[in-house]
Amino acid sequence: MPIQLAGTFLSPHFQIALTVAHEVNLPVSILPVDFTKGEHHLPQNLAHQPFGYVPYLLDGDFSLYESRAIARYFALLQKSALVPDGSDVKKVAKFEQAASTELTNWAPFVFAVALDTVWAPSVFDDASKAKHLADLNKKLDVFEGILGKQKYVAGDEISLIDFFYIPFAYTVIELGKVNIFDPATRPNLARWWKDVSARPSWLAVKAQSA
Amino acid sequence: MPIQLAGTFLSPHFQIALTVAHEVNLPVSILPVDFTKGEHHLPQNLAHQPFGYVPYLLDGDFSLYESRAIARYFALLQKSALVPDGSDVKKVAKFEQAASTELTNWAPFVFAVALDTVWAPSVFDDASKAKHLADLNKKLDVFEGILGKQKYVAGDEISLIDFFYIPFAYTVIELGKVNIFDPATRPNLARWWKDVSARPSWLAVKAQSA
Repeated sequence: MPIQLAGTFLSPHFQIALTVAHEVNLPVSILPVDFTKGEHHLPQNLAHQPFGYVPYLLDGDFSLYESRAIARYFALLQKSALVPDGSDVKKVAKFEQAASTELTNWAPFVFAVALDTVWAPSVFDDASKAKHLADLNKKLDVFEGILGKQKYVAGDEISLIDFFYIPFAYTVIELGKVNIFDPATRPNLARWWKDVSARPSWLAVKAQSA
Repeated sequence: MPIQLAGTFLSPHFQIALTVAHEVNLPVSILPVDFTKGEHHLPQNLAHQPFGYVPYLLDGDFSLYESRAIARYFALLQKSALVPDGSDVKKVAKFEQAASTELTNWAPFVFAVALDTVWAPSVFDDASKAKHLADLNKKLDVFEGILGKQKYVAGDEISLIDFFYIPFAYTVIELGKVNIFDPATRPNLARWWKDVSARPSWLAVKAQSA
């Protein structure tokens, strides 16, 4: 039986895992868990993801959660160069710096703006929304500098970590209509986004998510 | 010249990196960056940590930021068993699941409670503080279940990820006086905390942080 990826195309985290599966040519079958119906809180799903999120994966009697860990598992199974092989400790360290940076300096900030512009525009007032966008913009100005010195977020080669950015960036840019990677003010982020958002792996997932 | 770790004992993230250096017997010298004086925003520090945080490290002409990446670098340099060696892909995946879980289901929640009880008790009103604590408690109830099935956060052996929890837990429990790992209601977390918080590596850092 192929690996099963549980979740829904509505989830950017599910999109991260599935995009990487495509990128490393790993066939996976999809086990629908519709969180709009609360299915992620059903016992059969909590047994594999105790915090009650999607995605999770099933590979025989092995199960795994956290989209970024699932994506790493896919890359490792396929011996993909998207994850450094461990022979160069400094290269691994820079990869881990990028991995941690995505979770600390991007994910919470883009999530807030996605909530405000796409998923739940009525939760926060205008002042809070402006603050969320300003906080994201401050981080993006730093990323703009980083991508002025290297081609991708972990160095000069594309890596797994670049893929972690795509679904949330797409959500804010294409669904939320917030031009966070404006070529006029952020040419390096714009150049990087044009590159990574054109990966066939992502285009396939995006087409299924629309 | 030994590796230099830039930061201050006031920072739990600095404490994470230094505890792991001690744990893997790696000598590091400390380069003080006092964020109470805004030194993390000085150009010489932003050159190594563009987001303006501590810690960062200097190892010859190599620099690295993000405490968790620094800790991995220390463990890899010393070929420590705190990080799986890569031969078992499923073991690596479970380690990465734990790494990601710490950042998504613990760090933001414990940070909010540390802010409310130790660092900035006047920022949020009582209702917000109660919400922050309730959110953390919901996560802790899931961790209690996880630690009922395995000895440590990534499996039955201690790993790097256990160390990522210690400084923030210490901050909330010992400085904020919030009994988050009460043996009466969370025996598994209490058992785990008694174990990991007694590591000599942490006790050394804690003594210097007081």
